[in-house]
Amino acid sequence: MAESITTRAKDFAQWYQDVIRQGDLAENAEVVRGCMVIKPHGYAIWEKIQADLDRRFKATGHKNAYFPLLIPKSFLAKEAQHVDGFAMECAVVTHSGLRAVKDASGKVSIEVKNKLEEEYVIRPTSETIIGHFFAKWIQSYRNLPLLINQWANVMRWEMRTRLFLRTTEFLWQEGHTAHADHEDSLREVHRMLDVYADFAENVMAMPVIRGKKTNSEKFAGALDSFCIEAMMQDGKALQAGTSHDLGQNFGRAFDVKFQSKEGREEFVWQTSWGVSTRLVGGLIMTHSDDAGLVLPPKLAPIHVAIVPIFKSDDDKARVLEACVKVRDAAVAVGLVCELDDRDDMRPGSKHYEWEQKGVPVRIELGPRDVDGGVCVVKRRDRDPKEKTSVAIEGIGAVLTGLMDEIQKGLYERALAFRKAHTVRADTYDELKTALDGDGKIGNFVLAHWDGTAETEAKIKEETKATIRCIPFEHDGETGVCVLTGKPSAQRVIFARAY
Amino acid sequence: MAESITTRAKDFAQWYQDVIRQGDLAENAEVVRGCMVIKPHGYAIWEKIQADLDRRFKATGHKNAYFPLLIPKSFLAKEAQHVDGFAMECAVVTHSGLRAVKDASGKVSIEVKNKLEEEYVIRPTSETIIGHFFAKWIQSYRNLPLLINQWANVMRWEMRTRLFLRTTEFLWQEGHTAHADHEDSLREVHRMLDVYADFAENVMAMPVIRGKKTNSEKFAGALDSFCIEAMMQDGKALQAGTSHDLGQNFGRAFDVKFQSKEGREEFVWQTSWGVSTRLVGGLIMTHSDDAGLVLPPKLAPIHVAIVPIFKSDDDKARVLEACVKVRDAAVAVGLVCELDDRDDMRPGSKHYEWEQKGVPVRIELGPRDVDGGVCVVKRRDRDPKEKTSVAIEGIGAVLTGLMDEIQKGLYERALAFRKAHTVRADTYDELKTALDGDGKIGNFVLAHWDGTAETEAKIKEETKATIRCIPFEHDGETGVCVLTGKPSAQRVIFARAY
Repeated sequence: MAESITTRAKDFAQWYQDVIRQGDLAENAEVVRGCMVIKPHGYAIWEKIQADLDRRFKATGHKNAYFPLLIPKSFLAKEAQHVDGFAMECAVVTHSGLRAVKDASGKVSIEVKNKLEEEYVIRPTSETIIGHFFAKWIQSYRNLPLLINQWANVMRWEMRTRLFLRTTEFLWQEGHTAHADHEDSLREVHRMLDVYADFAENVMAMPVIRGKKTNSEKFAGALDSFCIEAMMQDGKALQAGTSHDLGQNFGRAFDVKFQSKEGREEFVWQTSWGVSTRLVGGLIMTHSDDAGLVLPPKLAPIHVAIVPIFKSDDDKARVLEACVKVRDAAVAVGLVCELDDRDDMRPGSKHYEWEQKGVPVRIELGPRDVDGGVCVVKRRDRDPKEKTSVAIEGIGAVLTGLMDEIQKGLYERALAFRKAHTVRADTYDELKTALDGDGKIGNFVLAHWDGTAETEAKIKEETKATIRCIPFEHDGETGVCVLTGKPSAQRVIFARAY
Repeated sequence: MAESITTRAKDFAQWYQDVIRQGDLAENAEVVRGCMVIKPHGYAIWEKIQADLDRRFKATGHKNAYFPLLIPKSFLAKEAQHVDGFAMECAVVTHSGLRAVKDASGKVSIEVKNKLEEEYVIRPTSETIIGHFFAKWIQSYRNLPLLINQWANVMRWEMRTRLFLRTTEFLWQEGHTAHADHEDSLREVHRMLDVYADFAENVMAMPVIRGKKTNSEKFAGALDSFCIEAMMQDGKALQAGTSHDLGQNFGRAFDVKFQSKEGREEFVWQTSWGVSTRLVGGLIMTHSDDAGLVLPPKLAPIHVAIVPIFKSDDDKARVLEACVKVRDAAVAVGLVCELDDRDDMRPGSKHYEWEQKGVPVRIELGPRDVDGGVCVVKRRDRDPKEKTSVAIEGIGAVLTGLMDEIQKGLYERALAFRKAHTVRADTYDELKTALDGDGKIGNFVLAHWDGTAETEAKIKEETKATIRCIPFEHDGETGVCVLTGKPSAQRVIFARAY
């Protein structure tokens, strides 16, 4: 069965699918084009992501609300860039009913009926419909800032889909805020980008680079988009979260006006920001290995799995008793612990299952361990042959310590990986070579760029790499564009991306 | 401003809308037919409902998952009753894109494009799509029972909509389970009905009657449907939750087979059960009064609102200091407390706002209170003129006690109301008179029925009342049908309903 996961070195894309299948995280819906079913173990990870982020949103003053799934078709046209960005990929609702029809042979078919006067689209994002309501809710500077978040499903009809990373329907949160001036809205844009970055690094154990998107990569309708970019284990970039400075674009499009302190009528300044189930894909590709899923303890639905080992019924009783003691100790320190006492499965298969589900710590406990008052501990982030014998007395504190170590260790390993695959390039040839890396694992390449869309497009066409972001952190070094030789204020990050 | 809520006696339907508007809970979306926007205060109540139910579902062994929003049109036809029940009200997705078109005058309009090969409907409920996946996931009795829950949005194109009670799109949870035999699936049906009933009574403080639906009122595709029914303050019934025995109907339709312990191939036995944002409507109509929203403490997003009262800056400092002390004491005992220190609003308006938002306890604190070491406490469930002076020292325990009292008191008041408006009728004339009640507030009427759909339909046509349920609890008295004189095994509950 171990063969059922392709190695990363052999075929990274296949490895990713195998890890998801063996971890029982999700599957393609097939009968609904480009959609997925998120299975219980995958959904449990998403719930943990949601809970942590939701707490952070509320702690920064945001309130959750819920807006309609459907958006009148005409709304999309109100912001010119927005319609260009999203119209092509909208699911369109044209009718409000079906009718069963029987043909002469008695076969039932279903006909579409009740054509709508105006079609609706299923929200690809909610700036337009929320803009409409903001216009009703905001009259004066006293109503500002208005800080709203929505947890919802959205649809974008994608041509090529991939579990978690790009699906026609996905789950996400979208923050939408309105402010009295640009200074305040920009502060919000950066505050939420920081919330995302902190969450990615401290909860997902996934290092990220903060930066600004180029004009060609920004959100359709924004003045500027900011992002966090992470490196996956194939050296490709994953855009993990975005925060947009919408300026007054949607305020103008939806007539969201307020009376300022000085009594003037002004358009509000808006932001929007979002992360999605795509994060689960990022989590998988950051930490997992050739044996399957690896999860950071802070997002693991199960922290510890205990597998009892025994042959005789006599042994069974004493072993299970000791297992319960370990489980209780784990639960007492706040960990979620699964005592795997299934009768119809061998210990080896159980271990294998918990390994593939990414449980951070697995414990084996047999009769000889009971005699010695110990249990055998295996860490998911280490070589599977590595085992430690740990006293049952005081195991709670040991497990807590292990969780911290694993959490920290995964982050450090991912950071070291990114550093090892981040290089500088000073010529176009260097850039091209550097992007390929060793042929298996690509690089993030820091290179100078002249700031034009033309150069960006040419490099993208020739190398398949995009500018992931103009990073906030840089050494201040100026230079000349690798393609055109024109001046450049700082290096940007080129990479191939998901 | 107090005039802005119509009294219940004057116009109950208008009162309901006014309470929602003044409580800032939700509003009609208007631009999206029959849909609503759930505003932050309303959504916070829904989040509390979700959190409590989700804990109960998990404690009874269920796991959350997520299935596609869209369902292939052909799926609906696989279960004959199901298509009859839902097809008429499905939103249909026929295209996957839009295109912006400019006419000669430069005006932009949006055209629908990319017709789909097979249309999809937006899920009105997910038995069909989940049935499809259950068939893939279930092979053997070892995979059973399979206990899944989904939190999701659904759409049913309704002709007449009403905030929370009946909207085209609504939020809900839908449990879907598969079992090896009917005994086990029936146990699940009743277990979840009990979970709903316990939640309704102990968390929502809303008494409910458990019972079975008649055949004409059951879920389209079920063998039997069970429900909890609550009485609103106008004497009408609200179906607050349902739990369905699906038998093998969907198992057969979607070919969900398993190998039994005895090695036979059999169809699974399924259940489904759900509650929705409709519960928020039930909560409002159970407890609120002519001054606005009243919330049971267990579902109140804010438990205590503190309004400081002062004139001079000197007083302000000492008053706010005392208010902070009260707030800290409330937070220390686990309550959510809002210290309303807004500068641009008078204390009266603040009180009025918290009253309309249903905050269970409001506290006033002025300079003389500070001198006396006390604060003035008002309970939302009592006459607004009733005030109690309470020592600040030890206020935490007092508030905890008040929350328990209010929670219990609201339940008892609602139960007493239902009892006062539940009557028996032994003739058809008595039934008709009893349904009307005093002309303002109707009754639940316990009457004998002959068990036929014809009688049920005739009574419904003539009285607008339906059989809400065949209650589990009854005194065993047999009798004769009020309409036909045919024998009846027990009284059923007739009422007009939402």
